[in-house]
Amino acid sequence: MHQTTIRVAEGALDANETIAGSNRGDFDRAGVRVLNLMSAPGAGKTALLEAALRETGDVRAGVLEGDVRGRLDADRLSHLHVPVTQINTDPAFGGECHLDANMVRSALPQIPLGEIDLLIVENVGNLVCPAEFTVGEDARWMVSSVTEGEDKPLKYPLMFRTCSLVAINKIDLLPHLDFDLDLFLANLAQVNPDAETLQLSARTGEGVEAWRERLLGLASAGR
Amino acid sequence: MHQTTIRVAEGALDANETIAGSNRGDFDRAGVRVLNLMSAPGAGKTALLEAALRETGDVRAGVLEGDVRGRLDADRLSHLHVPVTQINTDPAFGGECHLDANMVRSALPQIPLGEIDLLIVENVGNLVCPAEFTVGEDARWMVSSVTEGEDKPLKYPLMFRTCSLVAINKIDLLPHLDFDLDLFLANLAQVNPDAETLQLSARTGEGVEAWRERLLGLASAGR
Repeated sequence: MHQTTIRVAEGALDANETIAGSNRGDFDRAGVRVLNLMSAPGAGKTALLEAALRETGDVRAGVLEGDVRGRLDADRLSHLHVPVTQINTDPAFGGECHLDANMVRSALPQIPLGEIDLLIVENVGNLVCPAEFTVGEDARWMVSSVTEGEDKPLKYPLMFRTCSLVAINKIDLLPHLDFDLDLFLANLAQVNPDAETLQLSARTGEGVEAWRERLLGLASAGR
Repeated sequence: MHQTTIRVAEGALDANETIAGSNRGDFDRAGVRVLNLMSAPGAGKTALLEAALRETGDVRAGVLEGDVRGRLDADRLSHLHVPVTQINTDPAFGGECHLDANMVRSALPQIPLGEIDLLIVENVGNLVCPAEFTVGEDARWMVSSVTEGEDKPLKYPLMFRTCSLVAINKIDLLPHLDFDLDLFLANLAQVNPDAETLQLSARTGEGVEAWRERLLGLASAGR
């Protein structure tokens, strides 16, 4: 059974790469840069997008929300002046734990690619499978909350390795936790020595300006 | 492709149920009660087990640790007087995001079933797929941290629905968060009105005595 599982998985990943390539072609033709934003549940992806997208200057941003069920995050972003599209993954059995290229492809007709420069794909909260499935993105970033503990880069190495930037969120809670930031950074360096990091708090606003600049800068980043 | 995905998934779930039944038979014959303990990454499962298993009275407990990679959690529990067995899920492509019945079955020879009354299976940190795969357990519980936000029962309904007890952890952080506990409980009641809850903090010890009693009580609970 195990071998069968692996073969099915490899076939699914190959198919995913093919469809991700088609998505990428569509994004390129429309001149849209795409970020795949990932994290564990509750790490603060939506709060950080809310904070960053209040002021987008001359960047036309859009968001694609991936959730097992509901449109809570899309509703949270609905007061912003950016188009938000929701995908739910639950039609496929108990709910898929990640977005894949085909789900994003099926949402493309609802995304106004001609009216945006930057599409932020907010993935399902999960530190395992989202890292395995590309969706046609230019960049992969993640949010890691200091409440999750220092060991996460070692326990979920593929996720931390696949992301070029790790936003370390909820640093306002550091005085109330036994979290060792240096140890977290050392663990991160062990699996991904090239990862850029930002320390910030969506709640207090600390570091959010740097986060906004870095995020919006993706729209004009070289490929 | 979508229909194929669903068929493969249903076949895998059927096979899982069959193997879970075999596991359950082995556990029953050995007189071992089994808890499947689930949560998002970093919610505090290991810390709560560490706190509870310091004093197990006349209950002989054992732990089965599921992680994508490494044995960090097993090492954290190694100073306790309980047998700890580690499963890593990463031999199957980028790493499975959950334990399934077959992985637990393959670990059975390493678990001293004749020497324990209660086996606690600490699942991979993930709020989606672990809820879909039974492993032969008598009870399913979860840990939810107040740092994850009030919306989680609505975003991951299967997980919250499948668990009979939700341990609400890190309540020492409540004064430093915008977390609305009443709203969380209302959201939980919406998806699982019968869920038992415990409010506690592994860090300060608040509520840990009740958690220990409830956990060790599983060893003698009726089926």
